[in-house]
Amino acid sequence: MDIKNKIKELEQLNQKMFGKDFLLTWEKSVDEIKSTLLVAEILNKMHKNNIVTKIFESGLGVSIFRDNSTRTRFSFASACNALGLDVQDLDENKSQIAHGETVRETANMISFMADVIGIRDDLYIGEGDKYQRQVADAVQFGFENKILHQRPTVINLQSDIDHPTQSMSDLAKIKDRFGNLENIKGKKIVMSWAYSPSYGKPLSVAQGMIGLLTRFGADVVLAHPKGYDLLPEVIELSKNNAKNSGGNFRISNDMNDAFKNADVVCPKSWASFKVMEKRRDLLHANDQNGLQKLEQDCLLENAQFIDWECNSKKMALTNNALYMHPLPADISGLSCKYGEVSNNVFEKNIWDTYNQASWKPMIITAMILLSKIKNPSKILRELLDNEKYRLSS
Amino acid sequence: MDIKNKIKELEQLNQKMFGKDFLLTWEKSVDEIKSTLLVAEILNKMHKNNIVTKIFESGLGVSIFRDNSTRTRFSFASACNALGLDVQDLDENKSQIAHGETVRETANMISFMADVIGIRDDLYIGEGDKYQRQVADAVQFGFENKILHQRPTVINLQSDIDHPTQSMSDLAKIKDRFGNLENIKGKKIVMSWAYSPSYGKPLSVAQGMIGLLTRFGADVVLAHPKGYDLLPEVIELSKNNAKNSGGNFRISNDMNDAFKNADVVCPKSWASFKVMEKRRDLLHANDQNGLQKLEQDCLLENAQFIDWECNSKKMALTNNALYMHPLPADISGLSCKYGEVSNNVFEKNIWDTYNQASWKPMIITAMILLSKIKNPSKILRELLDNEKYRLSS
Amino acid sequence: MDIKNKIKELEQLNQKMFGKDFLLTWEKSVDEIKSTLLVAEILNKMHKNNIVTKIFESGLGVSIFRDNSTRTRFSFASACNALGLDVQDLDENKSQIAHGETVRETANMISFMADVIGIRDDLYIGEGDKYQRQVADAVQFGFENKILHQRPTVINLQSDIDHPTQSMSDLAKIKDRFGNLENIKGKKIVMSWAYSPSYGKPLSVAQGMIGLLTRFGADVVLAHPKGYDLLPEVIELSKNNAKNSGGNFRISNDMNDAFKNADVVCPKSWASFKVMEKRRDLLHANDQNGLQKLEQDCLLENAQFIDWECNSKKMALTNNALYMHPLPADISGLSCKYGEVSNNVFEKNIWDTYNQASWKPMIITAMILLSKIKNPSKILRELLDNEKYRLSS
Repeated sequence: MDIKNKIKELEQLNQKMFGKDFLLTWEKSVDEIKSTLLVAEILNKMHKNNIVTKIFESGLGVSIFRDNSTRTRFSFASACNALGLDVQDLDENKSQIAHGETVRETANMISFMADVIGIRDDLYIGEGDKYQRQVADAVQFGFENKILHQRPTVINLQSDIDHPTQSMSDLAKIKDRFGNLENIKGKKIVMSWAYSPSYGKPLSVAQGMIGLLTRFGADVVLAHPKGYDLLPEVIELSKNNAKNSGGNFRISNDMNDAFKNADVVCPKSWASFKVMEKRRDLLHANDQNGLQKLEQDCLLENAQFIDWECNSKKMALTNNALYMHPLPADISGLSCKYGEVSNNVFEKNIWDTYNQASWKPMIITAMILLSKIKNPSKILRELLDNEKYRLSS
Repeated sequence: MDIKNKIKELEQLNQKMFGKDFLLTWEKSVDEIKSTLLVAEILNKMHKNNIVTKIFESGLGVSIFRDNSTRTRFSFASACNALGLDVQDLDENKSQIAHGETVRETANMISFMADVIGIRDDLYIGEGDKYQRQVADAVQFGFENKILHQRPTVINLQSDIDHPTQSMSDLAKIKDRFGNLENIKGKKIVMSWAYSPSYGKPLSVAQGMIGLLTRFGADVVLAHPKGYDLLPEVIELSKNNAKNSGGNFRISNDMNDAFKNADVVCPKSWASFKVMEKRRDLLHANDQNGLQKLEQDCLLENAQFIDWECNSKKMALTNNALYMHPLPADISGLSCKYGEVSNNVFEKNIWDTYNQASWKPMIITAMILLSKIKNPSKILRELLDNEKYRLSS
Repeated sequence: MDIKNKIKELEQLNQKMFGKDFLLTWEKSVDEIKSTLLVAEILNKMHKNNIVTKIFESGLGVSIFRDNSTRTRFSFASACNALGLDVQDLDENKSQIAHGETVRETANMISFMADVIGIRDDLYIGEGDKYQRQVADAVQFGFENKILHQRPTVINLQSDIDHPTQSMSDLAKIKDRFGNLENIKGKKIVMSWAYSPSYGKPLSVAQGMIGLLTRFGADVVLAHPKGYDLLPEVIELSKNNAKNSGGNFRISNDMNDAFKNADVVCPKSWASFKVMEKRRDLLHANDQNGLQKLEQDCLLENAQFIDWECNSKKMALTNNALYMHPLPADISGLSCKYGEVSNNVFEKNIWDTYNQASWKPMIITAMILLSKIKNPSKILRELLDNEKYRLSS
């Protein structure tokens, strides 16, 4: 049976994810990335076959959303539920945190019975990843000092640097499309900026994509108009990844050039990190006029690149490429006048984008499971052999 | 034992609710209505006897409240909990939905591990039911296209047309009062408008009541001052129901006339659908002045009918009628100066109104169970025979 | 084994907590206080040893927070989760309660499947405890009249009078520090006011502390500047407690005097109840100018006592005292310029304050368990013997 084969494959991999956080994909080895994909695939098949995937009898998954979220919120809740955890959201508006307490304190106070903490913090460039590490250090301190009985795993639900639950879902989708990870070698994968009538979208989706896909020998092209640069350290890292994996990484300022013969395209808007830096400072200063001015300037700048739209013409340049988007997309003529993608292209590829999104709950479930279970193949085999069903029939 | 008899009775009924949504009671056959009542009664007795009613080992119940709610919110949460589902609320303020994404997309994104979606959408006349059907179509699309492993059931927690979890609870209460459904034949059941110092209350409670009760041979009277009309199609439908069931349906503009010899009275305020239409348009246009003007006009209009209060004098006209209200009521001298019901009458009938409300969690549990379980009598018998207790002792 | 000994100890105690609320510690006998501590200690060890502590297969824990909360919110959620209950928060902003319905009605409407209701209501002096009793009376009414199948236990998560989940956690910490409750006899325990740059903090932490610790033969000193009086009835009660337990209780207006040779110090800010009375009236009248004026007056008054800071100098006066704080503290130089405690003292004692806080989820779990289980030692022994683990391995 397929699930059993995947469990065997998992056993062959060398991973040390037990007790570890998941903050950046490039902090994980290739075997650990592969393990996460395999466990997600196994869980996906188990869920489809109505097999119970609970490894907890009780416990809490804590979510901290410092930015709005629908799909990641539901994905995290789904993952916790699938494993047997209840979700408790830390709503900073209803808490006493404004009071001036330290991250170390808050993190410990919410963790006495917490097994996982999922954090989205992508609004402030230079800060989101730092905050997640502060929380991780705080619960490590609490655990080492026997304040906490268990050390909750910190999962990055999007930071200023990476969005690993998204990029890992994207990788799962690409793996599924090409049959296996080896087949990604040499494929042309394009992460492209696209026009949007909004501003200030996080960079971390694009950064996550290039930081991860360059590790599998692909021919990765990052395309954006001049000025829409990503964090230099992620660019550096992607170059090195490509070198080490026998792949390729380059930046293009021409969307058509990038799309030519592409096997995968992911056209999505973002702000440049220089804009995000200004925005962060204005937000901290609560400078509403400054923010309005910045928004206007950025929208004007964006408006020069209204032709960076993924449409039939551009798709025709590709090698019948897989169209990807983390959703929701700005769809020309549907959710806005001009957007990231034409209604036509979006509609044609809707199954793929929804299917891509369906991986996120499974990826998060896999991340938690691997950080909690020393011997995952043993536990997965037990779940399979239990013959316990999720819904009675 | 009583539970076993009810399970046997359930087995006799011809119902095809498996995999179906529950949006309008008149989309269900009489046997399906009866099945829902029976399962609610069985679950009620099981809960009372500390018997576990879980049919899910994991899974999510998603709630979408586009209007405030206490009792329906808690009833839905209770129902999900009783069956083994965790509740995840889609708070549209904390999500990215404003972003302009389609209902099709949102519905699928929240449903990867959802087994049921409960929706309240009663503010905008002509829209609530439509939205619920859009969600239902969307998850049907997702399920058929293998985006979703399971097809979540959509439950109407109040729309602009019907409020089936309320009307079914009312029917359960009436059945309990008269011993069985057959005894409802010929009983005079009055759904009456009542004065309230507020405006814009949904019509769906009244519509749900007349649309359901007319199917059981009752002598249903809808009473309201001129101008407080309900949706014409529901009036039409109620007339036909009455004809088919051997009952009666008429509209009266005189509360006293309606109350005369009534066996059941449900006096409750609502706006006319013409007002609701104006209100909807003003809300969409965000016309605050227009809304204030409309409210003043309506309150002035309401004020002409301040004598439409259910008080001792009116109750004395009845045949010792059962007083019903979906709660909370506007109680004269308690929650307002003049209201739907006198403090005296409300206080006298408090047990019945609370008992009426106690059916709602059971009705929702039954609706979910019947949509999820092909052979409900088998599962209910197993739950009964398991001898597993909800609270250890 | 340690857990088994504690269960045996529990068996010796005479407690009648089954079916009872937990509103004020002084409504509980000394044996009941001891039972709560023992059960909390047993649950703590079970949780540490990965042993399942569920006594419910399904059911709801309802929380009502009429004031912001992080740690109590998470403690309540953790306690419910540890016992097998799902949490449903009654968010009064999203409900129809403003509508004018009675406490009796709301309490019953949310309780059809509720096993426990936790309430924080500490903003309005003279009202919080009353509200909790109204809720308790309401569900008692519902249960006696067979509207509710089960009678949810009401747990005080902080009222205007007492904060029992805090004071019981404090007692657990003190017991742990001194080895057993007997050793508290004769120890000098100081509940001291401390300076804070905010105003209007509840009195109930201080009241809870002196009302509870005076029952164990300690030498309890309440210290505060003139004018920062607590509720007279709690002072009276503390005096009587001290007399009955062979301990001592006195009020000092000198922080240094209080700290001299102290074994435990708990320096924490509060407002006087006279200020809280004015504030309550202004809040009810929604008198924003009056509130601002009151705040300014109070902060000016506070500012006279800026030297009421717990710092190294003051700690040096003590008998190497245990420093306690319910958290979050106002830390000089960290969360504010001048506060309740110097950064130095707070940092040195961080382990103890975090450890103190870790008792709260366990104390709440114990409170619920004792109100739900007639024979707790039997159930705890069964949980221990089940060899069921919280997290698979």
